[in-house]
Amino acid sequence: MEAWKLISKKLEPFQYTVWTEFTPLAIKYNAVNLGQGFPAFKCPEFAKQALIDATNSDENQYSRSQGYLPLCQELARVYSSKYNREINPLTEIAVTIGASEGIMCALLGMVNPGDEVVMIEPCFDLYIPQTAIFGGIPVGVPLTPPTPGENQWTLDFDRLEAAFNERTRVFMINTPHNPIGKVFTRQEIEKIAEILEKWPNVCIISDEVYEYITYDGREHISIANFGNLWDRTVVFGSAGKIFSVTGWKTGWAIGGADAIKKITTAHMWNTYCSNTVAQGAIARMLRIADEPYIGFPNYYEWMKNEYTRKREILHNLLKNATKIGVDPIIPEGGYFMCARVNPSLIESSYLENTTYDFAFCRWMTEKLGVCAIPCSAFYLDHHKQDGENLVRFALCKDYKDYEAAEKLLS
Amino acid sequence: MEAWKLISKKLEPFQYTVWTEFTPLAIKYNAVNLGQGFPAFKCPEFAKQALIDATNSDENQYSRSQGYLPLCQELARVYSSKYNREINPLTEIAVTIGASEGIMCALLGMVNPGDEVVMIEPCFDLYIPQTAIFGGIPVGVPLTPPTPGENQWTLDFDRLEAAFNERTRVFMINTPHNPIGKVFTRQEIEKIAEILEKWPNVCIISDEVYEYITYDGREHISIANFGNLWDRTVVFGSAGKIFSVTGWKTGWAIGGADAIKKITTAHMWNTYCSNTVAQGAIARMLRIADEPYIGFPNYYEWMKNEYTRKREILHNLLKNATKIGVDPIIPEGGYFMCARVNPSLIESSYLENTTYDFAFCRWMTEKLGVCAIPCSAFYLDHHKQDGENLVRFALCKDYKDYEAAEKLLS
Repeated sequence: MEAWKLISKKLEPFQYTVWTEFTPLAIKYNAVNLGQGFPAFKCPEFAKQALIDATNSDENQYSRSQGYLPLCQELARVYSSKYNREINPLTEIAVTIGASEGIMCALLGMVNPGDEVVMIEPCFDLYIPQTAIFGGIPVGVPLTPPTPGENQWTLDFDRLEAAFNERTRVFMINTPHNPIGKVFTRQEIEKIAEILEKWPNVCIISDEVYEYITYDGREHISIANFGNLWDRTVVFGSAGKIFSVTGWKTGWAIGGADAIKKITTAHMWNTYCSNTVAQGAIARMLRIADEPYIGFPNYYEWMKNEYTRKREILHNLLKNATKIGVDPIIPEGGYFMCARVNPSLIESSYLENTTYDFAFCRWMTEKLGVCAIPCSAFYLDHHKQDGENLVRFALCKDYKDYEAAEKLLS
Repeated sequence: MEAWKLISKKLEPFQYTVWTEFTPLAIKYNAVNLGQGFPAFKCPEFAKQALIDATNSDENQYSRSQGYLPLCQELARVYSSKYNREINPLTEIAVTIGASEGIMCALLGMVNPGDEVVMIEPCFDLYIPQTAIFGGIPVGVPLTPPTPGENQWTLDFDRLEAAFNERTRVFMINTPHNPIGKVFTRQEIEKIAEILEKWPNVCIISDEVYEYITYDGREHISIANFGNLWDRTVVFGSAGKIFSVTGWKTGWAIGGADAIKKITTAHMWNTYCSNTVAQGAIARMLRIADEPYIGFPNYYEWMKNEYTRKREILHNLLKNATKIGVDPIIPEGGYFMCARVNPSLIESSYLENTTYDFAFCRWMTEKLGVCAIPCSAFYLDHHKQDGENLVRFALCKDYKDYEAAEKLLS
């Protein structure tokens, strides 16, 4: 191969993602796509109207690199009340191209080559390449899966504590969790915070993009509000996930000013600024979301109720899906439900040179017409066996998608 | 300082940009902002209508990571005809968060630490940090400025050729040029292409975001179409610049499939995908732009005429601006006009510990109420003296801005 064709060494190990395999595969086989986490239903009408209003208000030019001021002000209002502290819209907020670019920028601003980044596994598949691209070393601490019949994933705190050392520069947490749907409890977050207090040089990236989606009355707890962690923590939120507008690619980080500045410095060179018209729309939507919505006290309660209903539907569907014989694990929050696969039902030709989860997802997409995502994609190479019998189904699809999947799988 | 507060070594030298100094400074002093290159007029009505149509058509979820297919198809149509070759919408196009993120992704995909990146100076201020962040070494080849009374910047081809060696991995070119407004001629591009043919391992990044804005009948020439360079070239375009919607942050790269794949691989991890609703709108706009527009055969001709008028207005304004006594250089294309400053008119307090261009821009913003951008920001550290008597004025402002500036400066 000509030398110019070689991709950089940083990207060489990361030329594959599950998204670019399974989304096109679902399209190719005309499958019901319960894989990638984009809402298959329309976004709320008020979101469309807000984007139209921002367009007509001529909010179409570059905005402040750190974030369009009207949006930063609304975010400061929303999160000041959540965190019970006065958040400065100018210094404690960064608006990014979704949480994805935000985490990329945070790692660019925080990590030097050789620095270690402790992350709880499974973890959203971006974390590992984003860490490695900047020379960081991902250190995974796998959660202990629930025993069959149970639903709770548990964190081994001794194992977590053992992952930290003088080279640790960043700790990453995700709650509610993608893909497993774990919502870390107050007690768990407290114990994690105690460990972090012992490592005062570590920055904290807390991915909370599913903050509003918790089930059975569970409380969403942010580590940013524990002990003295605020200053060195950045918490990620996502308008895409909250308002079902994943295509607007707008998210934010909230946190201490020095930690936020690492993100805004990186963002300035990476993308310069986020989409202004989407930011203008979201500023409007954050106000509207507090108002009564379709019989619920506000939009957030309506959304939580929708996902709760879909969790029930998907759980029943998977329990009764005789053609695939999976064992669903009920999530505590978030967009997804994982299930253990039964290798004996997979057509044998699919099992060659791959893991059960990939074989299962390819087989189910191609032969049964339903797409899910293999969970070993969410583990580091040396821990992939922990995820290889697990697959992820999305809760953010339309009711008719679940009806269709039910017919295809039972 | 606590260790966690330190920004990464990659970003440490790049915590300052002219944009985050001068745009807020212009706002603070309520100055006429002829600095940053965002249009100060409204975008065309058809752009707003296209965004509204895409919103109402529910194009609000994640799109294909490499680019939303309807936009890629329109871009393939437009550029196939420009380049007189069949461009594959699936493999030869990448849609990115403006050309800014596109160039960032190209450099991430092309550069290994220690690789050299040859760029013609002055150069848009992103190129240098984006190269250095990934361990690349920027190698600048300064253009020779016009002698007083002349307007043409020239490239010393011997000096350019001498910049290449076995470590050279990327060559960057920008035409029409930001900040100086040079439009490289067919003869110049041909000579550059001859040099590049001698270095077959070098990838080419061609920033052509001002492709439609050339003056006095000059032709925009893309290096991608010379010799065998197509395969290893990526050409950047920008909907923000073409349609005066810089806030939509949507641009693209066109080029050989292997070169484009470097960008799409990086983009997948950096931001995952570009804003879908903006992409849907731009797909519509690329069709509308070919239709007759306000008395012109198409939108592009109308736009070129607008910038031509503004170039005339700004040139006259600067020639007659007795309070600043600058010597404007007439641009051949693009959004900007540079001018040589006269240090003797700057208030002396502004001259301490800085270069003439920065002193001039701060003084003019604070004391005269007009903002421009200092051009030494567009040079590498060891070449900054080449830009220190040069400042950049934008052509993309409203007629009333030039009227106001004229009153303030003469």
